[in-house]
Amino acid sequence: MFKEGDWALIRYREKKYLRKLMPKDSLSVRREVLKFSEVIGKPEGVRIGNFEVFRPTLEDTIVLGFERKTQIIYPKDAFYIAFKLGAGRSSKILEFGTGSGALCAVLSRLAGEVHTYEVVEEFHKLAQRNMRRFGLGENVKFYLGDFLEAQVEEGSFDAAFVDVREPVPYLDKLHTSLKNGAPVGFLLPTTNQVVDLLRGLEGRFGGVEVVEIMLRNYKTVPERFRPEDTMVGHTAYLVFARKLTP
Amino acid sequence: MFKEGDWALIRYREKKYLRKLMPKDSLSVRREVLKFSEVIGKPEGVRIGNFEVFRPTLEDTIVLGFERKTQIIYPKDAFYIAFKLGAGRSSKILEFGTGSGALCAVLSRLAGEVHTYEVVEEFHKLAQRNMRRFGLGENVKFYLGDFLEAQVEEGSFDAAFVDVREPVPYLDKLHTSLKNGAPVGFLLPTTNQVVDLLRGLEGRFGGVEVVEIMLRNYKTVPERFRPEDTMVGHTAYLVFARKLTP
Amino acid sequence: MFKEGDWALIRYREKKYLRKLMPKDSLSVRREVLKFSEVIGKPEGVRIGNFEVFRPTLEDTIVLGFERKTQIIYPKDAFYIAFKLGAGRSSKILEFGTGSGALCAVLSRLAGEVHTYEVVEEFHKLAQRNMRRFGLGENVKFYLGDFLEAQVEEGSFDAAFVDVREPVPYLDKLHTSLKNGAPVGFLLPTTNQVVDLLRGLEGRFGGVEVVEIMLRNYKTVPERFRPEDTMVGHTAYLVFARKLTP
Amino acid sequence: MFKEGDWALIRYREKKYLRKLMPKDSLSVRREVLKFSEVIGKPEGVRIGNFEVFRPTLEDTIVLGFERKTQIIYPKDAFYIAFKLGAGRSSKILEFGTGSGALCAVLSRLAGEVHTYEVVEEFHKLAQRNMRRFGLGENVKFYLGDFLEAQVEEGSFDAAFVDVREPVPYLDKLHTSLKNGAPVGFLLPTTNQVVDLLRGLEGRFGGVEVVEIMLRNYKTVPERFRPEDTMVGHTAYLVFARKLTP
Repeated sequence: MFKEGDWALIRYREKKYLRKLMPKDSLSVRREVLKFSEVIGKPEGVRIGNFEVFRPTLEDTIVLGFERKTQIIYPKDAFYIAFKLGAGRSSKILEFGTGSGALCAVLSRLAGEVHTYEVVEEFHKLAQRNMRRFGLGENVKFYLGDFLEAQVEEGSFDAAFVDVREPVPYLDKLHTSLKNGAPVGFLLPTTNQVVDLLRGLEGRFGGVEVVEIMLRNYKTVPERFRPEDTMVGHTAYLVFARKLTP
Repeated sequence: MFKEGDWALIRYREKKYLRKLMPKDSLSVRREVLKFSEVIGKPEGVRIGNFEVFRPTLEDTIVLGFERKTQIIYPKDAFYIAFKLGAGRSSKILEFGTGSGALCAVLSRLAGEVHTYEVVEEFHKLAQRNMRRFGLGENVKFYLGDFLEAQVEEGSFDAAFVDVREPVPYLDKLHTSLKNGAPVGFLLPTTNQVVDLLRGLEGRFGGVEVVEIMLRNYKTVPERFRPEDTMVGHTAYLVFARKLTP
Repeated sequence: MFKEGDWALIRYREKKYLRKLMPKDSLSVRREVLKFSEVIGKPEGVRIGNFEVFRPTLEDTIVLGFERKTQIIYPKDAFYIAFKLGAGRSSKILEFGTGSGALCAVLSRLAGEVHTYEVVEEFHKLAQRNMRRFGLGENVKFYLGDFLEAQVEEGSFDAAFVDVREPVPYLDKLHTSLKNGAPVGFLLPTTNQVVDLLRGLEGRFGGVEVVEIMLRNYKTVPERFRPEDTMVGHTAYLVFARKLTP
Repeated sequence: MFKEGDWALIRYREKKYLRKLMPKDSLSVRREVLKFSEVIGKPEGVRIGNFEVFRPTLEDTIVLGFERKTQIIYPKDAFYIAFKLGAGRSSKILEFGTGSGALCAVLSRLAGEVHTYEVVEEFHKLAQRNMRRFGLGENVKFYLGDFLEAQVEEGSFDAAFVDVREPVPYLDKLHTSLKNGAPVGFLLPTTNQVVDLLRGLEGRFGGVEVVEIMLRNYKTVPERFRPEDTMVGHTAYLVFARKLTP
């Protein structure tokens, strides 16, 4: 049952909205109005007119609910990264930078503990606000500051994810912070960045892989099944590697 | 440290092998030999000649270690499905059919409990063998038999994943087995199957999405950064929907 | 040298414009103005401020200059189709429907003769206007009417291209109009249409192929080489076949 | 009608063969034999058993008939390049290097004249042999030698296509050989090469575009319409630009 103050994913045909169910509020799409007072007390999956109302998944929350001041990591990439890092309930994972917290939210669902560093105070606060607002990230520790200057015990992380413009200067510190053989992932928008990173990894990190994930959405009309007219053409290259022991 | 009997992911340049570290065994690639007795007692991430030895991730285990008698669900698809179903540590997830257990292994890492049904006894046993062999699936209940005939309480699952050739006959039972608003995913190789399913979903399931995930691997030589010459052209269409309340 | 009345492709960074060079006209982009009087008399490839001025290619003309009332066939598809039909200077090619004339313009550059049929008078006129305006299509014969009712000699075409919503009713007449073994192409946006066509082709047409062409644009900044953020996700499936002799 | 000595494209379900129809020869696929003596005198498009026999298109000839000692340019790329260069019946086009002659054959079908340079004598001869064998390339002039040392009049080409590993050293000579505003295309397999070229083009060439064309083949069984399992993952990046006047 939906209660007052719950977050709801509201669908109107192809459109999606994330709204907090306050009794006096409503949503209006193409002249049709959904009063939230009519949703409260109803079961999830309820249809009212052309509206369908669901409990938001983690993906809905991140895509529709997270405030962003930087480019967000897309779910297609985040989901792949989280598993690719081998995360499990006993994993302690390092992340920098935090950004808006999208990947952090995904990692924290799979891992035991996430330690995330962000150098820009505005983002550091934003990520925490995004998490708290939706009851996420209980197992996340947020640090303000550059990971290069962080106090980190040697070999204390099971995996790491790096989302900074120039990762090469961080590789030494990253290497010592990780357990032997630990997986690490990087997200980089340009080929030039990938080339620089591949050079930097040599000797210290092995098992290198570079992948790109393309997601193609289809229209859902059974009589005219076909892909959507436009798609995301690029988000980033994903680079994965594993710490080699010295 | 690697111990006798541990599973190891062994890389030799682009090649990957999954091997159990028994002291008398070895791996030979292009005339270079890795004696496992030399690996035992060494830290993860150790390099010996051109070999690099790591602890396998869940992906390594599934792709290289799972015996398969049916087409396996690719990690690119499995990772996306698991998160798209909104799985979390308190989720109880339904799956049919089990197949080789690849998706089941991924779901079980994210969810609280997975109940999986398989009608072919050979696959039912294979999936359990695959899991046990690698210490996976402690939170999985394996059922032999057609889900259509299963004893399932109404509204008892938080999400479901369906991998059968003709899902439409299962939709009624699926609908009653799910909680209101619960997410459900389907994996279907052909457009004809998707069209049939889209028709079947109408009225009972909402929030329908169809996606396709394409993974592109890149060569990792920094001086010649470019995609691999060949790629997987198609695995399956992924259909997602949510239970509408009657 | 550009003369008064010439068509010009004008580029301003990423943006493209097709304009007729009339001495009193000008183009203004982001507060920078290009007076056409300054372009007339200058050589092609001239730079004036941030503007670059070229003679338009066939692609520029179609994409930027053709007025369209239907979905245009994209160059990526048109170029592939034209060659796939095996067109050469002695080929006599059949096309229906004409639409805005985009594919017709491409075919006519490669083939000896193109006969194109269009049932909607508005499009029939539009295609001719588009061609004439840019001095194209001298070897094209435009017919108003449904190809089903056309007076066509048996075995008179070397190849054909079909762009109608439901091609199956046309297959008999198409078959008799083509020379033995002649290639034929179809453009269809949905998978349902492709499935219907594949069924219709059986027995009368062989060598069937279905392809889809995806074009990915890249940003051209050398320091940040990467794909564009968005891309066209789908235009159409292309079906090719060849007439089997009875 | 097929005559003795004609080239034939023979299809056996998904498989394709290019064969010269000599009366004593035959083709055997999966224990089924096609005697060429039975094909000679028959019309194109004839079916004999599971074999279908057609006149080869330019694409069939290049893909199946051209002997190659270098990586061939794929039709998906060649068709796009030819039109993108704006080639028409009055165009005089420059190409280097010739390679196996695949792109040259495509260009020569669209253009008035093609002048092609190749520094490796073996390829220079191979391309000519490939063309002559199939009656192609009457409007092509083959030059042996490095284009850098060629005697070429200033401003004598309407367009150019460059397929060499390091195009930058050729840009000066290329620039002077082209007419003002002329289009030029480059084919480069790696991102590093593209980055170098983009830097080299600056100032002398404008209207720069970089694209990648992905071709996806589909299975043609109407009951199970779906993409092929594997596809070509990468051939090359295509770079297009136009000569700026000094």
